[in-house]
Amino acid sequence: MSTIGIDIGGSKALAVRLDDGVVADERHTATQRGPLVDVALAAIRGVWTDDVEAVGVGIAGLVQWPEGVFAWGPHVDGTDVPLKALLEEELGVPVAVDNDANVAAFGERVAGAARGFNDFLLVTLGTGIGGAIVIDGSVFRGESFAGEWGHIRHDPGGLLCDCGKRGCWETVASGPALVRLAREVMSLNPEGSLAGRFGSRAITGEDVTAAADAGDEVARGLVAEVGSELGRGLANLIAIFDPELVIVGGGLGSVGESLLGPARRVAAEALHGGNHRLLPPILVAGAGPRSGAIGAAYLASTIRS
Amino acid sequence: MSTIGIDIGGSKALAVRLDDGVVADERHTATQRGPLVDVALAAIRGVWTDDVEAVGVGIAGLVQWPEGVFAWGPHVDGTDVPLKALLEEELGVPVAVDNDANVAAFGERVAGAARGFNDFLLVTLGTGIGGAIVIDGSVFRGESFAGEWGHIRHDPGGLLCDCGKRGCWETVASGPALVRLAREVMSLNPEGSLAGRFGSRAITGEDVTAAADAGDEVARGLVAEVGSELGRGLANLIAIFDPELVIVGGGLGSVGESLLGPARRVAAEALHGGNHRLLPPILVAGAGPRSGAIGAAYLASTIRS
Repeated sequence: MSTIGIDIGGSKALAVRLDDGVVADERHTATQRGPLVDVALAAIRGVWTDDVEAVGVGIAGLVQWPEGVFAWGPHVDGTDVPLKALLEEELGVPVAVDNDANVAAFGERVAGAARGFNDFLLVTLGTGIGGAIVIDGSVFRGESFAGEWGHIRHDPGGLLCDCGKRGCWETVASGPALVRLAREVMSLNPEGSLAGRFGSRAITGEDVTAAADAGDEVARGLVAEVGSELGRGLANLIAIFDPELVIVGGGLGSVGESLLGPARRVAAEALHGGNHRLLPPILVAGAGPRSGAIGAAYLASTIRS
Repeated sequence: MSTIGIDIGGSKALAVRLDDGVVADERHTATQRGPLVDVALAAIRGVWTDDVEAVGVGIAGLVQWPEGVFAWGPHVDGTDVPLKALLEEELGVPVAVDNDANVAAFGERVAGAARGFNDFLLVTLGTGIGGAIVIDGSVFRGESFAGEWGHIRHDPGGLLCDCGKRGCWETVASGPALVRLAREVMSLNPEGSLAGRFGSRAITGEDVTAAADAGDEVARGLVAEVGSELGRGLANLIAIFDPELVIVGGGLGSVGESLLGPARRVAAEALHGGNHRLLPPILVAGAGPRSGAIGAAYLASTIRS
C-alpha cells in the first residue's frame, strides 16, 4: 500500500510517500504564508500517486485530536481550521491530522531511535521547540495539547519571544537562536571566521551547523551554547517525567553530538538529586528531520478505511 | 479494618489511623533529625492499635517503587534506606512506602478533589514543592522519580536554593519563601503591621497565612506574591501536560483562594496559546494538608496481606 505523510513546520514542509513501508518519494517545499489547506495540498500533490490510500499530516501547533482541527500555531497561518475534513473532501482518502511532534514520536517508535521503548519524550528543534510524550507506548495528549513546551518560561529575564512573552525556551534553543548568536558574533568580530565565511548574506541555522561540522571553532562554540540551553530545559523535563529515553529531533536536532554532548553535560549537572538518579539516554532521532513526515505516513497506514 | 498512613515532610510528620475508611485518630509530630526508620516508627506508634493490618508511608524525596527504598531527599536524613523492609520487620504488618505527593494524589482521587478525574496533577506546597502525575487513573512514575518538579529551574538568576543550585521553583513558592518575604518586609518596615504583629520572634509560614486570613493587607500581598510564582510554574506544567485538573495541596496549599486566585490569574496570562485553550481548574486539595497521610492509609488498605 501507499501512504503519504507530510510535516508542516514554520519555514518548510516535507512530504514523503511510503510504498509498503519504504520511502518511495520525498519532497521539500518552502511553506508560503496562505490558507493552510493550500499549503498542505501543495506538499501532498508533490508526491501524490493515484494508488495512495491515506494521508497523514503533522503540523506545528495546537491540533485537536482526533478531530484534526488546527486550533492555532505561532508559525502557521490560520486558526480553528478543520484541516482533516477539508483534505478528505479534496483528496477522497482518509486523512489524519496531528501535532508535528506527535507524528514524529510515532515514527521514532515504529522505525527510529525509540524502538522497544514505552516511556519516552521527543523534543524537536527547528524554527521552535516541539514535543511529544509517549507513555505506555502511546502518545499522551492530556486534554489535547500536551507536550507544548517550546514556550515554557526558561528565563524570566530572557529574550523577547515572537509569541510576545519573554524568556521562552525556544528563544535560546532553536534554529533562529543559533542564527541570532552567529549574527552577534559576526557583529562583534567582523574580521572573524564566521564573517569571513558568510560575509553580509542572510544566514540560516544550517549554515552555522555546516560551519561547525567543517571544524569552525566559533561555530562549534555557538552550537554548544544552544546545546547547553537545550540541556537546561531537558533537565527540567527529565525531573518531571523520569523517562526511559529522550530523543532530540527536528532539523537542528539532527546535528547530533556537537549539540547533544553539551546538552547531556548540562542536563546531568542541572538534574536535582543527580547523584541518586541516572540521566536517561539523550539520543538523536533515528529518522532525523524526516521523523515527522515518515511518522505521519505510518500514522496514515493505521487509519485507511 | 484499620490502617495507618503517615506523611513525613521536611519539618513535621502527620499520622492518621483509618478505621473502615474513617479517620479514627490523628497525630502531628515535629520530625527530628535522626534515623529515618525511627522518625517513621515514632509517628506510627502515636496512632497504633493492635488491630492495624497495614501501614502506608509517604515521604518527601526520591522513593524507589515498589521496593520502598528511600533513595534521597533534601529535607530528610538518610540515603538508600530500605524503609519498607525495616518497618515490616519492626511492625509485623505489610508496609507500602511511596513519595509523599504520590500518596496524596491517591488520597485526592479516592476521597478528595480529584474524584472522577483520570488525568490530573497534584502540586504540594510545604517546606518545598512536591508533585504527582496521574494518567489514566494511575500514578505515573516514569522510571521511578517522576513529578519531582520542586527543583526545576524557575529563574536562572534567582535565589540560591538549599539544594545548592540557583532559582529552583521552591525558592519562591513554598512555606520558607513566604517566611523569607515576611522577614524582608519587617526589615524594610520595622513600624509596619507585620513587625507589630510578630515583633522579633521567629515566624512560620502559618503565621503569615494566619495574618493574611485575619485581613492584614501586607500579609495578603505576600501570599499573593507566592501565589503568583506558583502560577508561573503551574503554567509550565499545564503547557506540558494539558491536564483535566490541577490540585494544590500541602500545608501552604490549604490556604486556599488568597493563594490560588493570584496563581490562576498568572497561569492564565503565562500559558502560551492561552486564547486557544482553556486553563484547567486549579483547586485546593480536598483533604487539605492531610491528603498525604490519608492517601497513605488508603494505599495501605490496598496492600494488606
